Amino acid sequence: MTKETAFPSAELAAFAAVLNFADIPDEVVARAEDLFVDWFGSALAGKGARPVELVAGFARAMGPSQGPCEVLIDRSSTTPFFAALVNGAASHFAEQDDVHNGSVFHPAAVVFPAALAVAQAIGASGRDFITAATAGYEVGIRVGEFLGRSHYKIFHTTGTAGTIAAAAAVGRLLGLSPAAMLDAFGSAGTQAAGLWEFLRDAADSKPLHTAKAAANGLTAAYLAKEGFTGAKQILEGLQGMGKGMSTDADPLRLTDRLGSRWALAETSFKFHASCRHTHPAADALLTAMQENELRISDISAVTTLVHQGAIDVLGPVTNPSTVHQAKFSMGTTLGLIASYGKAGMVEFEDGFAKPEVVAFRNRVEMVLDDEVNTAYPARWIGKVRVQTTDGRTIESRVDEPKGDPGNTLSRAEIETKVKGLARFSNGANTAEMEHLLPRLWSLTAANHVGWLLTGKEG
Amino acid sequence: MTKETAFPSAELAAFAAVLNFADIPDEVVARAEDLFVDWFGSALAGKGARPVELVAGFARAMGPSQGPCEVLIDRSSTTPFFAALVNGAASHFAEQDDVHNGSVFHPAAVVFPAALAVAQAIGASGRDFITAATAGYEVGIRVGEFLGRSHYKIFHTTGTAGTIAAAAAVGRLLGLSPAAMLDAFGSAGTQAAGLWEFLRDAADSKPLHTAKAAANGLTAAYLAKEGFTGAKQILEGLQGMGKGMSTDADPLRLTDRLGSRWALAETSFKFHASCRHTHPAADALLTAMQENELRISDISAVTTLVHQGAIDVLGPVTNPSTVHQAKFSMGTTLGLIASYGKAGMVEFEDGFAKPEVVAFRNRVEMVLDDEVNTAYPARWIGKVRVQTTDGRTIESRVDEPKGDPGNTLSRAEIETKVKGLARFSNGANTAEMEHLLPRLWSLTAANHVGWLLTGKEG
Repeated sequence: MTKETAFPSAELAAFAAVLNFADIPDEVVARAEDLFVDWFGSALAGKGARPVELVAGFARAMGPSQGPCEVLIDRSSTTPFFAALVNGAASHFAEQDDVHNGSVFHPAAVVFPAALAVAQAIGASGRDFITAATAGYEVGIRVGEFLGRSHYKIFHTTGTAGTIAAAAAVGRLLGLSPAAMLDAFGSAGTQAAGLWEFLRDAADSKPLHTAKAAANGLTAAYLAKEGFTGAKQILEGLQGMGKGMSTDADPLRLTDRLGSRWALAETSFKFHASCRHTHPAADALLTAMQENELRISDISAVTTLVHQGAIDVLGPVTNPSTVHQAKFSMGTTLGLIASYGKAGMVEFEDGFAKPEVVAFRNRVEMVLDDEVNTAYPARWIGKVRVQTTDGRTIESRVDEPKGDPGNTLSRAEIETKVKGLARFSNGANTAEMEHLLPRLWSLTAANHVGWLLTGKEG
Repeated sequence: MTKETAFPSAELAAFAAVLNFADIPDEVVARAEDLFVDWFGSALAGKGARPVELVAGFARAMGPSQGPCEVLIDRSSTTPFFAALVNGAASHFAEQDDVHNGSVFHPAAVVFPAALAVAQAIGASGRDFITAATAGYEVGIRVGEFLGRSHYKIFHTTGTAGTIAAAAAVGRLLGLSPAAMLDAFGSAGTQAAGLWEFLRDAADSKPLHTAKAAANGLTAAYLAKEGFTGAKQILEGLQGMGKGMSTDADPLRLTDRLGSRWALAETSFKFHASCRHTHPAADALLTAMQENELRISDISAVTTLVHQGAIDVLGPVTNPSTVHQAKFSMGTTLGLIASYGKAGMVEFEDGFAKPEVVAFRNRVEMVLDDEVNTAYPARWIGKVRVQTTDGRTIESRVDEPKGDPGNTLSRAEIETKVKGLARFSNGANTAEMEHLLPRLWSLTAANHVGWLLTGKEG
């Protein structure tokens, strides 16, 4: 091992810098395409959302009036920094973007906004785009795993690890050397931020975290390309992210089977439109209701048996006052499942404040469960104990929530989801999506990524 | 106390939001003017510095080609975001910007870039500018004190607390209500970042930290003005900055004598062009040499008796390879003092690698001292033990290093320093500075802050 790769950050940076399309197995490329198309729906879904539109307004006020990159929610153009910022904000609002279980990290919302903006700006090919996005996933997921559970108790890993992930993706597109990629990691890590405190107030910070992770990681990579240096061990160093923002950081995770384990392919799609921590219990409740033919009125109480992370993130949300906050309410999510049989965008919008759902919400409790907690975050087991009005106790479990790699979405299901998101937000109409989807699915083969919604195909 | 001011973050935000010029004692206004003029020199001093110019290049690539705000190093114009970014990077490069001892926070480098950009953009008066800057100082210093010594061991407080400080200053200029100011704090705190890890590699992160603190704090305030909400207790909350980034955070410090204690007036000017942690020992060595008529060749070794923070920040720098890294070397700084009798910009540039200075550097050690460490950070005592070549041991101390409030710089000394910085970097020539300085000193009386270097006087 050379000096430059003698420590984990350097090894990880070198991996991202030299990753070639040919190195990526076909099934991983196919999954990357799935994740890209799935992400596109989430990016459009942010259109019209107040915090997202406020970030877009800020970008218009501070940025140039046009540029080489597409802002998906309003089909305007701008520079890479602001495209990453606004598309990053939009991608995480609907709570429908993907998640990697083991790292509790949402890669798409930070990787694709940054990579798409830069690919458009430099005229990159579809292969280079997919390669860069894969580098971003592989790096960000390992950084999230490295930072560990203690980090996630306080920090929004998607904001922190996401900054490094965006730097990796952009750095790959810009052709950074391993040494420059390491500089990019250093400048990204020293900007990495995002605290969960906002959850208590239903504040607008979540899309700000993804916006800034995408834009700051991009900044780090652009600076590194010009020679701006960064700390070489921003992750594992004595005054780095692990020391400052975690108590259980494990540097071995940073380089875990690089090149043979494809963490991207472990990433889960979100099926329900809520925080992923609600999904295992939601699926378990749905199973219990279907197998026992229960209606909402048949249920007097639900105990969800959960991991500690669910309690940390969802616990503060006891009386959600907005649709977005309701997505972090275990009770609301289960109430929608009980009332509608699903918890999608429309159900949250229409139902989160409905008396039946609110009443159900107040009959749901979370209890820490040893088995679930021990399996987490590698496995997200769903367990519920349902009390019926006629006095029965029904126990139900799912071992892999819908959307996990072993219970994944088909391309048809992804299309349905994406079209639904586009329609919901008015980001694109169905005809537009019918026209666009074949192009999205075949992006890998494109000579130039180009613009996606505005006809300028690179 | 109303609900909105029933907790420290809210009380601090309300203070910043309602602070009026008339509330600020005359001597504090005068000190704010001193700090502003002193800062102006540091902002110019960044001109030509590689990392600063790289940030400026990034701003040109990503931002608009003109705007209402001045970029001081190259006299171009841009939007508030990029002016804050570039002027923020420039202000912290020369290591000549001010410092508040108790918080170990450099307020000027983050507060003035953000406040100046916004004052120029909105046509604010000199009084509003000084009021806003004062709000930024008072808030940022208290946040730094709140985060405490454990924070500073890993995090660059100027990057973290600085983000809140910039938000406070900009929020005051934008006329945020107390509630909106609290939102701005929330959005600022959740972006707050900056790790010391870069010191080990002499990497370029330090000006990036001030650039991002200024620009991100500004972003938070602009977003809050439009209704973007943030966590209400981003500082003291269970998943806030204190919990995530400190082990000794003390919420009582956030509201310490608001409105009666003026922390701005406790801020020190930097006399030597090095990290402030070197200054007490540098002054003590200078005293020892002057009182005993020692030349560099008379000294065989120096033991500096220091606080732990000095060891944390300066300890990793054993063999500085750049001028900037040398500013974090206790040995180099003392070597310059011994060789030249001072350690200014010119001495660092000319002398940091000079054999005589390098040899001296290697004869300097740092030892933790109980008295110094206990007094820190409220007081920065300098103590050295000098071994002479003829076998004497000379002990020397200073209780307030040059530039501290009790040993401050006169306006004439500030002018000399600022002109020297401008000349050193070629940021402005002496004739320009002679013309400009009267205007800078009287900025408080200006109807509009206006542009400072380019003749557009608002």
